[in-house]
Amino acid sequence: MKIEPIGIIHTPFKHKKEPPPQASRSSTVGFIEVYQKYEEGLSDIDGFSHIIVIFRFHRSRGYHLKLIPHWDDTERGLFTTRSSRRPNQLGLSILKLLGRKNNILKVKGVDMLDGTPLLDIKPYIPDKNLNRGVRIGWLKGKRR
Amino acid sequence: MKIEPIGIIHTPFKHKKEPPPQASRSSTVGFIEVYQKYEEGLSDIDGFSHIIVIFRFHRSRGYHLKLIPHWDDTERGLFTTRSSRRPNQLGLSILKLLGRKNNILKVKGVDMLDGTPLLDIKPYIPDKNLNRGVRIGWLKGKRR
Repeated sequence: MKIEPIGIIHTPFKHKKEPPPQASRSSTVGFIEVYQKYEEGLSDIDGFSHIIVIFRFHRSRGYHLKLIPHWDDTERGLFTTRSSRRPNQLGLSILKLLGRKNNILKVKGVDMLDGTPLLDIKPYIPDKNLNRGVRIGWLKGKRR
Repeated sequence: MKIEPIGIIHTPFKHKKEPPPQASRSSTVGFIEVYQKYEEGLSDIDGFSHIIVIFRFHRSRGYHLKLIPHWDDTERGLFTTRSSRRPNQLGLSILKLLGRKNNILKVKGVDMLDGTPLLDIKPYIPDKNLNRGVRIGWLKGKRR
């Protein structure tokens, strides 16, 4: 299966060690450049306070199926972590949308490297049903 | 860029018109078969009540940058909708994890077609900061 970037994400993070481990801890501002051929798809996005972005961890290589994640000292299954080293190198962040100018979105909360390929944008729609009875496994009580 | 399925999602939905338009409206049970070579990556997942799955809308072809979405009668930008017809055909659902047996996850809330290629699983971690001041644009007041 092939995928193609629909844009590029500009952030202040030039080196792998710089980004914070999770967007919710980040108040860093960045810019999403959606390629002009897709600009029309951004219509009406101004009404949304948050967006979901799917991107490629383009600097990531290989993966381990068990790893010791941030904020833990025990090996955990890869799919219970947000590690950038994973099959398909797909990343997901929820960002605050600060504004739009043509094909450029100004966003807050970026946690990816500068130059990250953008694969998709979806509306963030909170689901109130999800606020009840959520369990978060080994992440419970960890700093997040 | 290439991506490869890491598994396959089994659901009761055999035809394009069957799935509900959004997982949060679905109480349908399905099974995620993670290919055995990735099974070790599921360690510790039992502790999580919900998971995020990223998948491919494998039966979707082409896209329009503006479309009239469900529950609306006005054209909206593609990236403010969850339409399956989009560049890269990437889908995202939050599913309730009912149980695991080896490489098979039993989940509730499936909204994708039977045989959908699975691309990634991530832990669902609610962000309390996101419950305040969220705006959802044209979706406000729509049945969701």
